[in-house]
Formats: sequence, C-alpha cells, structure tokens
Amino acid sequence: MSHRIFNFSAGPAMLPTEVLEKSAAALLDYKGKGFGIAECSHRGKEFDGVVDEAIARAKQLVGLGDTHDVLFLQGGATQLFTLIPMNYDGNGADYLVGGEWSKKAVSFGKEAGKTNVVASSETSNFDHSPKPNEWKMTEGADYFHVCSNETVHGHRLAVWPTHPNLIVDASSEFLSRPHPVSQCAMVYGGAQKNLGPAGVVLVYVRKDLHARQKKVMSKLWSFKDQAENKSMINTPPTFGIYILLETFRWLEAQGGLAALEKRNTAKAGLLYAAIDNSNGFYKGTVSVKDQRSHMNVTYRLPSEELTEEFIKTAAKNGMVALKGYRTVGGIRASIYNAMPVEGAQALANFMKDYASKKS
Amino acid sequence: MSHRIFNFSAGPAMLPTEVLEKSAAALLDYKGKGFGIAECSHRGKEFDGVVDEAIARAKQLVGLGDTHDVLFLQGGATQLFTLIPMNYDGNGADYLVGGEWSKKAVSFGKEAGKTNVVASSETSNFDHSPKPNEWKMTEGADYFHVCSNETVHGHRLAVWPTHPNLIVDASSEFLSRPHPVSQCAMVYGGAQKNLGPAGVVLVYVRKDLHARQKKVMSKLWSFKDQAENKSMINTPPTFGIYILLETFRWLEAQGGLAALEKRNTAKAGLLYAAIDNSNGFYKGTVSVKDQRSHMNVTYRLPSEELTEEFIKTAAKNGMVALKGYRTVGGIRASIYNAMPVEGAQALANFMKDYASKKS
Repeated sequence: MSHRIFNFSAGPAMLPTEVLEKSAAALLDYKGKGFGIAECSHRGKEFDGVVDEAIARAKQLVGLGDTHDVLFLQGGATQLFTLIPMNYDGNGADYLVGGEWSKKAVSFGKEAGKTNVVASSETSNFDHSPKPNEWKMTEGADYFHVCSNETVHGHRLAVWPTHPNLIVDASSEFLSRPHPVSQCAMVYGGAQKNLGPAGVVLVYVRKDLHARQKKVMSKLWSFKDQAENKSMINTPPTFGIYILLETFRWLEAQGGLAALEKRNTAKAGLLYAAIDNSNGFYKGTVSVKDQRSHMNVTYRLPSEELTEEFIKTAAKNGMVALKGYRTVGGIRASIYNAMPVEGAQALANFMKDYASKKS
Repeated sequence: MSHRIFNFSAGPAMLPTEVLEKSAAALLDYKGKGFGIAECSHRGKEFDGVVDEAIARAKQLVGLGDTHDVLFLQGGATQLFTLIPMNYDGNGADYLVGGEWSKKAVSFGKEAGKTNVVASSETSNFDHSPKPNEWKMTEGADYFHVCSNETVHGHRLAVWPTHPNLIVDASSEFLSRPHPVSQCAMVYGGAQKNLGPAGVVLVYVRKDLHARQKKVMSKLWSFKDQAENKSMINTPPTFGIYILLETFRWLEAQGGLAALEKRNTAKAGLLYAAIDNSNGFYKGTVSVKDQRSHMNVTYRLPSEELTEEFIKTAAKNGMVALKGYRTVGGIRASIYNAMPVEGAQALANFMKDYASKKS
C-alpha cells in the first residue's frame, strides 16, 4: 500500500485500508481458487457463502433477530425513493424534509405515491431539521420517511423518531453508530459513504411489510420478491457486496458500532471544537447545535478567497475533497467510519493554524 | 498474481488478468493520489476523466460516430427488459424468442408494453433460434428486440438482423466481435460476461430515440435523462465503470474487436472440433450448426454419470465451472474474451482424452 492521504470526500468516500487491501486481493484470487470473487457465478458456492455471511453480519451489527430481511439492491438510494411508495403506497406517506436528500426523496417519491410533507426547513436554507413539535403528522399514513443525516447540510437526527412504520434513509451515517433498526419498518442507504463502493444499496426491511407489497412492474423492484430470492432475482453486484462483507468484518473487528460511535464522536468533537474555538473565524452552517452531524462537518470561512485558499493549502498538506456542496458553499469535511482519528486531528490542527495566521 | 485456472463460468465470468491487476491497483491507489478510484466523487475530475474515456473508447471499439449515446446503467439487462418498453412503447414491439433470455425479455417486457413474439423455438427446447423466414413481423412495431447470443442454449445470431429499429441484448457476446451498432437503435448488455463485474449495464442508444422518450416514473429509468446526465443523475457504480474502462483499453491493446473475433472463432473451433470428431461421444445441443455460439459451447455426454465425472475430473485438471444450465443439462463451456486460446486448447485436449478413455 502506498501512502494514504486524508480524503474528506462526501461520497464515494474513503474506505478502510484493510477493506481495500482484502478486496483487491479477492479480486485477483479468491481463497487460492485460481479465480477472483468477481469472476464466479452468483449461484455458486463461493458467492453464496459471501452473501450468506454478509446478511448474517449486517443483522448482527445492528442486533437484529429474524424480524427483518437484509437486501442488497442496485440503483442507489435514489431508486429507492421511487420504489418505496411504488411498493407500499396506500393512503399516502409522511415525509420530513430537512435537506437536499429528504427533499429529493419527496420529489422522486411523489411520482409513485402520495407524499405529505410534515415539515420542511427549506425557507431557512436547510440549516437545521424541523423540530418534532413542528411536524404535522397524518393519521394512518403508510409510513414516515426521514433522512437521518443530511450530507449536504451537515445535520442529523441525533435520535431517530419513533413511529410504527418509520423508514430511514441512513445513507450518509449507515453503520456509523448503533441504529434502532429493530424498531423501524425499513432502513436503507447507498453504500458509497460508509460501507463500500457505489452501486450497492443495503436495505433492512421488516418482514410484515411484505404483506403490504403492491404489484410492481418488475419483480426486481419488489422488496418482497427480492427478499424471497436473497437479492438474486438476477445477477447482483457481486464484487460490491463482497466489499461490504469485508467492511462488516472490519466493523466487527473495530469493536462493533458502539466503538465506532465513540470514535466518530471524538472525530466530530475535534472539528467542532476547532470551529467553536476560532473566535468566529469559522462559522458552522447548522443552526441547531445538537443536530450537528458526526459525519459531515460543514462550516464557512470569512470570504470566498479564504475558502479557496484554505482548500488548496489543505490539499497540499494531504487533506483533500474539502469543498462544500455548491448550494451551501464553504467547507464540508466528511469523516465517515474509515477516516482515522488522526485525519480529524490533522484537519483540526490545520484549521487552528490557518485561523491564527489569517485572523 | 497467483496461478490462474481456466474458468469456464457463464457469468459472472473470467476477466483478463491484466484488467484485474490494474483494477486492483486502482482500488488501492489511483495514479498515486493517495486514494483509490472507488473513493472519490463521481463529480470530481478523476472519475470524470474515467467516464469520458470509457464513453470514447466504447464508441471507438465499435466504430461509432456521434449517432449514439453510451450509457452505464444499473440493474442488469433484466432491468432493461422492463425499461425498454417503458421508455418506448407506442404500438407494441416485436420480439424474437430463441432461448431463456429472449423469453425473459418478453416476460418482463410485457408488464410495461405490448410485446409481439414474431417466432419462438420453445417447442424444440430452444435448440436453435427461429429462422428469418419463420418470423411474423408486425408492421409499424416500435422496435424489434433480439438476444444475439443465448447463453443458456449456446446459439447465436451469426449475423444480426436488419431492422430500422433493432434492439439487441448482446450481454453474452458483447464486444467479442465487431458489432453493427451504427445500424441499431439500441445495443445493451450486462457487463459480467465479457466486460467487467456484475452491476453495470453498457448501453448504446441511437440519439433519435430520445424524441420517442415517454414519461417514466423515475428519471433514473429514462434513457434520455441518463444520456443528458452522462449516466450520473445519481452516483453511478464508479468502480465497475473503471473496470470496464480497463477492459476497453485491453481490447484495444489486443488489436480491437476484429482481432478478438479471430481469437474467439479459433477457440470455439477447437471445442466444436472436439465435439464433431468424437464419433458421437459428445453431442452438441444446438440443432442448427451455423448458429453455434462462439461464447457458450454446449454439449452432452452419453450419461449423467459421465457428465458428473467429466466435470469433476476437468476441475482437478484446472478447468472449472463447466456444468450446463439446469434446464439444458450437460456441459457448458463459456469462452468469453478473457479465456485464452490455451484454455480452449486444454479443454479440447481433455475432451479428446476423456472420450478415448470412456468410449
């Protein structure tokens, strides 16, 4: 392995070095068999072992019993924005809109079912997620959809809401802390933040939802059919799923999700301290402090010029992909599971130095 | 690289060693940047360079000008079975049914549009593809859909039909020989046979089809929208696309598709000679000789017991995944682009020895 830099990309994002090394080895040769894991049938015993272990580990990591199925789908979370109402729309569903991603869930979802927005913070440029006392919930809604971490705006639902049919897009915080999956109807997310390469969506779906399954145009789009076929109605993205398995093993080896949460909290703490102790040089973009994301730390510098220079100087110092999303601007430092504490520490130190030079 | 065996898997299938080695290296580190190609934003300059080169090379390999768009989609060819009529159904479309895959195209497709079967060879267990003089074509059909190589049954359309709106599922022979893409409305295929890992679908779509684009439920499912967004409406399967790019480079380095066709014809010739010269010990499953596939060579042995023993003995001799598809039985040797001539030669030699011992 050559030198690795600190890569703060929001996604596709930094992956654990060990996961990459094991996956690269398996791409060349799987367990000394003379072929790689991307080169064998998804119906053969090698890949069957992979998918079985991946399902078991995905459940174990979040402490799930037999209440939910684990699926590995394609099309990104964006495809699920459509599939969820397509599969379950009856009376219409409730959606909490706190940022770009939950807004997209509604925009795609409303083509396939009725979407009630219980609250939106768009008028304040999504600088927070609407508080529960502002939510106008619908009696008898099919489900309540939330995005638990808004990648673009840098805030999260520190505690996931309680709802009999909660559906959570957890893409940008997936498996970064213990999740109450057992209390959710569905939890899903694109892999490319915390789990693996783009092209795989991890889904936990509560089994009783299968009874509500509507007829959809392709079996590929039916959560029930995918569950019954272990996500193999057709060829799944086998190598992507293999990388997820290596990530699940790595997560377990790190001490599981509780240990990850501690580390991620410490990392976020370093960066928020650098913001809060900068005498206003850095300004966080999130207006509600206890909603600040532990995955995407967003802040602004006093000017565009300083922001650009900050990004360039950081890159020269081995810290890349710090540019904020175009609609928000400023800096976004994404510190997913794979970012070591040293990376967050290096950025915090750099921020302190930079502020003291430029203040 | 450890020793590589001859892997005759029908898909996911053997990939060129050089492609795997370069892809594994890029997974760990992309051009010395300190991060891998699966770890950077699809909107950043590194991946943008990948997708631009992949599109240019995909066109160049089949001699295309600016008449067609190149897309990299998800969901497998199976998802396209639904998307094609969903995008273009007007008067209904014509389908040629010569095997499992073209049958599936109809079975999935008819949920999204009207599908006229112009001919089917199912009554003869798909031992050939219906001949043109049997096709009952529909005047004014939206398009004519064919599967150019039937993986399960081992036959192909040696020459692709002529039709103003021909749509070809070329999955299991994609880029194994020169294709008349410029004369087709659409050519598509799952990558996991000849091109790369499962989870990417390569699509060539003629630009005038965009004018016929119907409104579909998700922009992700619109060929027009995907073309306008360079397949990046949302995050595409970036690492899979990177492997395709390495395959495209490798194909060029081999001398392009004409050179590949020569090599593939030679490989298939070795195996068909071993069948034809076995005094009936091996029986090809394809009834029309000039339809025999150059990618999937299917044949039977005199008994189930011999078939099983053949498969086991071949495996001990470094030739694996020879078992035929369950509905066809017997042997299937898939010899895609990545299978070297030595692999086909080794299997042909083994077949000769085995037949002489057991006859």
